Amino acid sequence: MTGHDPEVAVLRLGHRPGRDNRMTTHVGLTARALGADRVIIAGNASDSKATIEDITDRFGGPFEVELTDGYRRVLRGWSGTVIHLTMYGLPIQNVEASIRADLESEPLLIVVGAGKVSFDVYERADYNVGVTNQPHSEVAGLAVFLDRLFEGRELDREWEGGTHRVVPKATGKQVEPIEES
Amino acid sequence: MTGHDPEVAVLRLGHRPGRDNRMTTHVGLTARALGADRVIIAGNASDSKATIEDITDRFGGPFEVELTDGYRRVLRGWSGTVIHLTMYGLPIQNVEASIRADLESEPLLIVVGAGKVSFDVYERADYNVGVTNQPHSEVAGLAVFLDRLFEGRELDREWEGGTHRVVPKATGKQVEPIEES
Repeated sequence: MTGHDPEVAVLRLGHRPGRDNRMTTHVGLTARALGADRVIIAGNASDSKATIEDITDRFGGPFEVELTDGYRRVLRGWSGTVIHLTMYGLPIQNVEASIRADLESEPLLIVVGAGKVSFDVYERADYNVGVTNQPHSEVAGLAVFLDRLFEGRELDREWEGGTHRVVPKATGKQVEPIEES
Repeated sequence: MTGHDPEVAVLRLGHRPGRDNRMTTHVGLTARALGADRVIIAGNASDSKATIEDITDRFGGPFEVELTDGYRRVLRGWSGTVIHLTMYGLPIQNVEASIRADLESEPLLIVVGAGKVSFDVYERADYNVGVTNQPHSEVAGLAVFLDRLFEGRELDREWEGGTHRVVPKATGKQVEPIEES
């Protein structure tokens, strides 16, 4: 996020083309909107990639989208902290302060699955984290995790390079073009 | 949520059978996991209802799922505060304290759409609220809204009547049956 230094990236596992397009798009858009710098999607998710990039072109960035066919290579090569969001993990409220401290000195990779996640991901993760130990949604888990990680600062970030912005309103919709400076 | 008095319900609009089944299920499961008391789904979402009820049977409640074919009636009849989550609304960080104060005395209905939401919802809402003014996900918006509404207390709630519970672990998965007392 603009204003923090080490990178925060999201790695989306288990994407099944067609069936998971919307969930994967929502993972990527949530990562962007709530302060991550990049999403890496494992699998053939070119539709989701295109949608997320369209939103970034329109409403600003910086935010990057990548596809990978080798997520284990991404995990192995990550020089920093790896978080795996899972309902089986340790409660977020018990580990978030420690994770925030790690982010002061090194980049953070947040792994979210679709269906079943391979056991090697649990083993590679520095923290397996549960946003509750209840089954709900990888999109919801990611959203709460990011909002707590950044302690709400992500809500005030500035966006660069977009063509349009929303003007917050009590009622109704207002979108205005951004003039070149 | 157990421990708060006035009810918090979520109203899911715009469900398209088939296409939206997973998103609607995730809205309902997120509502349940993060402290709402009930989800009301507008439209024919019997598959999502069954999935959410299965999870409640297994992992506990109380949590209710209802279908309605008349969401305007639900909105008109709501005796309490109506929140509409929308990227066009006022920043959550500016209105959350006021909404929390309202919840001390009256129930709260949180409206989340799928696609385009009819203008009468914007007009009926006491607060149109943006979890950022960026496009992302109704599931993410609902999750952050609930976590902020309850100020994290929802993460410590107790569940009643389930047959199983997850035991949080640093690595791996542990689910245990709950013995009858």
